[in-house]
Amino acid sequence: MMDPTEFRRRGKEMVDYVADYLENIEKRQVYPDVEPGYLRSLIPNEAPEEPESYEDVIRDVERVIMPGITHWHSPYFYAYFPTANSFPSMLADMLCGAIGCIGFSWAASPACTELETVMMDWLGKMLKLPEDFLAGTEGQGGGVIQGTASEATLVALLAARSRIIKLIQDEHPERSEADITSKLVAYSSEQAHSSVERAGLIGGVRMKKIPTDNKFAVRGQALSKMLREDRDAGLMPFFLCATLGTTASCAFDYITELGPLCKAEKIWMHIDAAYAGSAFICPEFRPLLDGVEILLISIRINGSWSTLIVQQCGLVTDYRHWQIPLGRRFRSLKMWFVFRMYGLKGLQAYIRKHVGLAKEFESLVQADQRFEISAEVVLGLVCFRLKGSNDLNETLLKRINNARKIHLVPCQLAGKFVLRFAVCARTTELHHVQEAWSHISQLSSKLLQEQSH
Amino acid sequence: MMDPTEFRRRGKEMVDYVADYLENIEKRQVYPDVEPGYLRSLIPNEAPEEPESYEDVIRDVERVIMPGITHWHSPYFYAYFPTANSFPSMLADMLCGAIGCIGFSWAASPACTELETVMMDWLGKMLKLPEDFLAGTEGQGGGVIQGTASEATLVALLAARSRIIKLIQDEHPERSEADITSKLVAYSSEQAHSSVERAGLIGGVRMKKIPTDNKFAVRGQALSKMLREDRDAGLMPFFLCATLGTTASCAFDYITELGPLCKAEKIWMHIDAAYAGSAFICPEFRPLLDGVEILLISIRINGSWSTLIVQQCGLVTDYRHWQIPLGRRFRSLKMWFVFRMYGLKGLQAYIRKHVGLAKEFESLVQADQRFEISAEVVLGLVCFRLKGSNDLNETLLKRINNARKIHLVPCQLAGKFVLRFAVCARTTELHHVQEAWSHISQLSSKLLQEQSH
Repeated sequence: MMDPTEFRRRGKEMVDYVADYLENIEKRQVYPDVEPGYLRSLIPNEAPEEPESYEDVIRDVERVIMPGITHWHSPYFYAYFPTANSFPSMLADMLCGAIGCIGFSWAASPACTELETVMMDWLGKMLKLPEDFLAGTEGQGGGVIQGTASEATLVALLAARSRIIKLIQDEHPERSEADITSKLVAYSSEQAHSSVERAGLIGGVRMKKIPTDNKFAVRGQALSKMLREDRDAGLMPFFLCATLGTTASCAFDYITELGPLCKAEKIWMHIDAAYAGSAFICPEFRPLLDGVEILLISIRINGSWSTLIVQQCGLVTDYRHWQIPLGRRFRSLKMWFVFRMYGLKGLQAYIRKHVGLAKEFESLVQADQRFEISAEVVLGLVCFRLKGSNDLNETLLKRINNARKIHLVPCQLAGKFVLRFAVCARTTELHHVQEAWSHISQLSSKLLQEQSH
Repeated sequence: MMDPTEFRRRGKEMVDYVADYLENIEKRQVYPDVEPGYLRSLIPNEAPEEPESYEDVIRDVERVIMPGITHWHSPYFYAYFPTANSFPSMLADMLCGAIGCIGFSWAASPACTELETVMMDWLGKMLKLPEDFLAGTEGQGGGVIQGTASEATLVALLAARSRIIKLIQDEHPERSEADITSKLVAYSSEQAHSSVERAGLIGGVRMKKIPTDNKFAVRGQALSKMLREDRDAGLMPFFLCATLGTTASCAFDYITELGPLCKAEKIWMHIDAAYAGSAFICPEFRPLLDGVEILLISIRINGSWSTLIVQQCGLVTDYRHWQIPLGRRFRSLKMWFVFRMYGLKGLQAYIRKHVGLAKEFESLVQADQRFEISAEVVLGLVCFRLKGSNDLNETLLKRINNARKIHLVPCQLAGKFVLRFAVCARTTELHHVQEAWSHISQLSSKLLQEQSH
């Protein structure tokens, strides 16, 4: 069995392995070649009886694991949205693993609860959220790190559900929870992430999709119309999940219109800003969050963490009441390391660089008559397509991904098949973006040439 | 900003820090001295503008964090239940952080999905689960790593809820989901963990607590009586969460009685074996799981992971449908490293050592006439108390925890205030247990002496 002496040696080797992996990641093919089921045949059918050596295990990382990895931190990865990783956060994670506490209550590890409260306030201040979203020393708000973005939405929805049931039962004690629940309606953009719909399914409430305008954003009028119809039908609107930065095209719902409406109708308004939220730490992007002052109860933001910041919730003590799971790792350590070792300026620079690269890609697309931009480029995502049929664009995407040089995923916008180019990796530089574009451009030329025959 | 060269250096320092921390953990006071709110005054009110150096950050770990840590891996920690950590799992975690993929679909990182499927089969085989719990190459079962134990129960309950709603609607398409949900009843032991009750609250279904026998376990008769009454009242029983190894006293519900009953009544039976489950890899403890063959749909086990193994669920492809969150880390890497570097024998030895230490503590308690054992000692938990009032035992526990030498938490058993001594840390040896007992014994003598005056 591994003792501390061997751990010191192997741990240092692992640090080098990790550094080598990340320094040379662009030499690895970004998307793997394997077929479903590839891994099972490469390893035994059951766990070994006797311990194996570390050498045997680490050798299998390159033989078994790496051939099946999609390299999210490769500068050739432009799919989905970024998942942050940074050297400071990896260091914090090592420490977090060693402390290995389960922070389900204050006493279970006080530092774990308290650092989280303060880090969420740091984040709230970086985002310039109104005072009542902060915990402070006697605040009524505060934030919590959720395991994932999907849980943040679910927790907000469940909190809103309990609140409305309590409000109604206070006035009508004879009404059962099941009866009330059967009348509840939650709303979100038709462009909202699938996890929002899932939150409705899990919470057992109706979730209606609000149609969006030509910018793929929800306007007040669209919500207002649905609210009227639903109230007339005897239903009870109780929750809106507005999106700032949709997954498909990074569209922004009009929260300055939606906020006052929710306030008037006593609807819990939750903002899903999973992707776009971190950009609000830059003054030039903060106006995208304008309207938060009016009324808003919860907001979620992803970093290398997922957070949920709420208003008017009393003093935080035991975070287990703020989330689905009971147990929790000491995740705020990562925020603390990252905030301090980047500094606000470093984090702003990180975001600006990604936005700049996306703008660069946008102008390359715009300069090419064969292509069109499919949605306004606000942050690090460019939605684009060949002028022409969906089939043509599907074929182009297939060829791009089959060539394995870069990796993209598509989206549907107003019935159109669109390619999404999301600047993701920490290591993406201008020349990678230029290379990616020239590669796409070449594949397009070839495709269009074939089609013209 | 930290570059790969600095990361290599700091990462290696962190490996040493972690090794030092774990090698010398017993020199640290197991439970902290801080008061609620201690941390906020030790750090700035907001994130720094400019990056700080790594030295500044790491210095603050000892100044700010460590004074507020409850050291779960100290050999003087006997509270709650163990949370595993091991050198191999920490190494795997470093790799997992570097790869930093989000495995929400097969394509998002094939190795991440595939290793998990195979590791869950390894675990299923180690537990000697019936074949239909395994994924195999064309199996209908399989497992999934959940973020936490609480999520495993919730996911099982939500799956059972969907299943019953579908079954009923297939026969009675006119019945609404809300109407059906309002009639559903789930059951669990009155000794079940609080997360089971929470799962009912989140899922919006009634959760009834089944009374236990004098061993704090649920018998078939007790369930059968409740089922009859509830069916007579027009309700629809649909889910049972049986516990193998309760949190309070490590009691085992009689699944050989409950299984056939659930089968006859078409109730989804879920086994919560969060703590005790890992012991079933030892042949001498496997009989505790007997009855699983009859009928059982899901089971959860904690290691340094939480898992849910299900039966008859079709081939696994996208794990996001098997859990609450959408995203997921590459957590099976930890299982792979741990299973291989311990081997089945090493893991069995680990469990046997903890059980042996608990037995040792039990015999020390039994040899002292002033004390009584409050529940059968089956695995690594000893429930004990001073013969006498609850007040007396509460005072004893308070003194034990105030002395800060060891850390315990209490439980309530049949109205009695009971002290729980759970063998938790990897580093706990016989002499630690003996020391702990002699400390408890001395504090008791002093207390009893004071009381007799």
